[in-house]
Amino acid sequence: MSTKIVPEHLSGLLAEVSDWSTDPDELERVRTDRSGLIPDGIPDAVVRPASADEVVTVLRQASRAGIRVVTRGAGTGLSGGATATSGEIVLDVAGMNRILEIDADNATARVEPGVITADLDAAAAAHGLRYAPDPASAAISSIGGNIATNAGGLRCVKYGVTRDAVLALDVVLGDGRRLRTGRTTAKGVAGYDLTSLFVGSEGTLGVIVEATVKLSPLPVGSRTATALFDTVAEAAAAVGAVLRAGIRPSTLELLDHATLLAIDAAQGTALAQTGGAFLLVQTDGFGADHEMAQARTILRGAGARVEDAADDADAQRLLQVRRLALPSIERLGRVLIEDIAVPRTRLADAVTGIDDISRRTGVKIFTFAHAGDGNLHPIVLAAAGPADPIPAHVQDAVNEVFGLALRLGGTLTGEHGVGVLKRPWLADELGDTGLEVQRSLKTVFDPAGILNPGKAL
Amino acid sequence: MSTKIVPEHLSGLLAEVSDWSTDPDELERVRTDRSGLIPDGIPDAVVRPASADEVVTVLRQASRAGIRVVTRGAGTGLSGGATATSGEIVLDVAGMNRILEIDADNATARVEPGVITADLDAAAAAHGLRYAPDPASAAISSIGGNIATNAGGLRCVKYGVTRDAVLALDVVLGDGRRLRTGRTTAKGVAGYDLTSLFVGSEGTLGVIVEATVKLSPLPVGSRTATALFDTVAEAAAAVGAVLRAGIRPSTLELLDHATLLAIDAAQGTALAQTGGAFLLVQTDGFGADHEMAQARTILRGAGARVEDAADDADAQRLLQVRRLALPSIERLGRVLIEDIAVPRTRLADAVTGIDDISRRTGVKIFTFAHAGDGNLHPIVLAAAGPADPIPAHVQDAVNEVFGLALRLGGTLTGEHGVGVLKRPWLADELGDTGLEVQRSLKTVFDPAGILNPGKAL
Repeated sequence: MSTKIVPEHLSGLLAEVSDWSTDPDELERVRTDRSGLIPDGIPDAVVRPASADEVVTVLRQASRAGIRVVTRGAGTGLSGGATATSGEIVLDVAGMNRILEIDADNATARVEPGVITADLDAAAAAHGLRYAPDPASAAISSIGGNIATNAGGLRCVKYGVTRDAVLALDVVLGDGRRLRTGRTTAKGVAGYDLTSLFVGSEGTLGVIVEATVKLSPLPVGSRTATALFDTVAEAAAAVGAVLRAGIRPSTLELLDHATLLAIDAAQGTALAQTGGAFLLVQTDGFGADHEMAQARTILRGAGARVEDAADDADAQRLLQVRRLALPSIERLGRVLIEDIAVPRTRLADAVTGIDDISRRTGVKIFTFAHAGDGNLHPIVLAAAGPADPIPAHVQDAVNEVFGLALRLGGTLTGEHGVGVLKRPWLADELGDTGLEVQRSLKTVFDPAGILNPGKAL
Repeated sequence: MSTKIVPEHLSGLLAEVSDWSTDPDELERVRTDRSGLIPDGIPDAVVRPASADEVVTVLRQASRAGIRVVTRGAGTGLSGGATATSGEIVLDVAGMNRILEIDADNATARVEPGVITADLDAAAAAHGLRYAPDPASAAISSIGGNIATNAGGLRCVKYGVTRDAVLALDVVLGDGRRLRTGRTTAKGVAGYDLTSLFVGSEGTLGVIVEATVKLSPLPVGSRTATALFDTVAEAAAAVGAVLRAGIRPSTLELLDHATLLAIDAAQGTALAQTGGAFLLVQTDGFGADHEMAQARTILRGAGARVEDAADDADAQRLLQVRRLALPSIERLGRVLIEDIAVPRTRLADAVTGIDDISRRTGVKIFTFAHAGDGNLHPIVLAAAGPADPIPAHVQDAVNEVFGLALRLGGTLTGEHGVGVLKRPWLADELGDTGLEVQRSLKTVFDPAGILNPGKAL
């Protein structure tokens, strides 16, 4: 290691860790995430701990020396939460990626933070189980990052978000103290719910070095169908009707016409010809057939043309259409991936409002949604090139989308996190006392204020 | 009010509230809850706020003057969390009991804290909905108290605990600041999860003045059966087999032989003749029939004699048997109601271990359990009279039960809270750093330390 450049203020810290780098290419890689945000500077170093003990060492040193630390997992965040700049070191836990235990009889797993979510799901499947939260990014995102952002996904409408799947955490606090939160039992109320506090805390309270998560039985069966509507407003109304009837679909995804066109262009499909909006519906469990039959009746009553998946392969193909929405849009240029959520009765208003903003500002916006949760992803086409700056009128349009979400009684972010990109709007959502309390909370866990400064809060 | 006795140190505070009392009978009533714990002293006054604003006034004054405040709802807590003594005032929110809104289309309700849980459930039922958490105390406990203890219940194995049903809270902090937590959308990750922090905080962080809770559709159908086993160990093993098969019963309750004998004695039934342990199984939803058929096969394979409920009335009767367990045991004398939870594979070990403690110490212990969650209620017969002191050997037996829970990887309390009764054991479960962090957290919300001092932490 003697040939590596050691920034002087980091020499003490780096001397104590086994693997680190100040290589410019490597620093370039770890300064960004998938948000498209590019910080002004470059972080000072990246540190790759091999164990929880090493994380303790790093944070103890960093806390004493006032070195700012950005924790990074797979780097797939969409809000800039894992971006890093000069004056900061990146704590890259991607290498802490062991699945430590699958306890099939208790339906739990113990994992290190760098485990790729889909790998956990696959390991669970070998025992007839699965990790229920199903972020669209499962193949590339890590469980630690999922926890840090309280990631959602396609199955959340029935199975809950990441928070609902996390039982216990092993965390290193800002000053190096080691804290275990939660428990491995299904229920428990001893002490405040610190586990939930860490879920969604975006690396500002501590570094997750181990998680115990809940697994669920693989459903005994599932049924998949698509429903095509003339307008997205009709589709949104149908979502309400389905849920109001007591149906609990395991997936209920909405794609607007612009998104269908983008998928067609990228994948060679012909979805956009068939209708103005596309709803993907899945039911599962012991009553999957019966439940889908009911859903079909309601969807047809709401004006849909419903088609059932012929078999499992066909169902997978339809799910894949949904998963390809974002990559297909991203081929068109630099995008801003938004993530508002509204009460489910306001879904149609949200979609219409976004259309209206797009028309008025001339900014192209594609919308798809975890419709059953009222969680919309307006994808804003910001510029032609991936590194082009974001024009002011595009940022204005995005601001209008945030304003719309709050006006409809919603939130800035349903599942991606605040990161850097949504911070300017946070006070509007949380209120002054809310922000004040949140800031005080951070100091309990990170007294020196070194953890992911300038993010989330 | 001029004839009422006003303790001098409270004159400023009481002058600002519309309804309060220092009547000895009333103070006697509000110093206890359903835990059986009787504090040494009597609280100084009881204050009955009519509105959130009045709660703000009380806490502002109390905070300034250093007056300690015990918040009380229906007074049905089982851990002593709402008991009060001299030097404390009781803030009785039972009168703040309006259901402010049922939003059927969004499946949410806004309620004041004093609303009786069963009343909310009934109001929801008028819209085809229900409040899913189903504490056995629903008919007498209040939603605010349910939230303060993160109450569980019979349906939690499928539908989750109170925390899973709370979307947003309106809270008055210790110093009178008003804080809104959460949101009314299904998903949201802006800011730390303060809602979960308040759920289960047992009146130590703030006073809940309004809650927005999730409602769920009434299930389209349900099936109920009983399974009788020769031994409780067999029944516990059957629970594991049912869950391992991917069945998600909406209720899965276990009663041991001692409990069956107590119910028979109190209710004139003849349950204990039929077997050594009784399992109550319910499935619901679109696949209720299919799911129960599978459960039946597994239960029979595990040695059970399974009987199906003939109809809904019969199913209600069976559920009522379970609900009568505690009242039936309580007729035998003063009881200590314990509430341990263990990983579900340790259910048999827990039951056997409790039997063993009972046999060894000669202390009579009845056990019933939310078996699907591994949450056991060992009911310890402490003394003949309701106000008799608890003998040392009984307390020793209880301590052994706590030790057993922790040894099996479990928790002191699955759903009742720590209150006063479980505090001595808390450090063993949370660890030193855990306790330290929890104490620091409390000061963020209650800087003067006036809220429910000596409880929960």
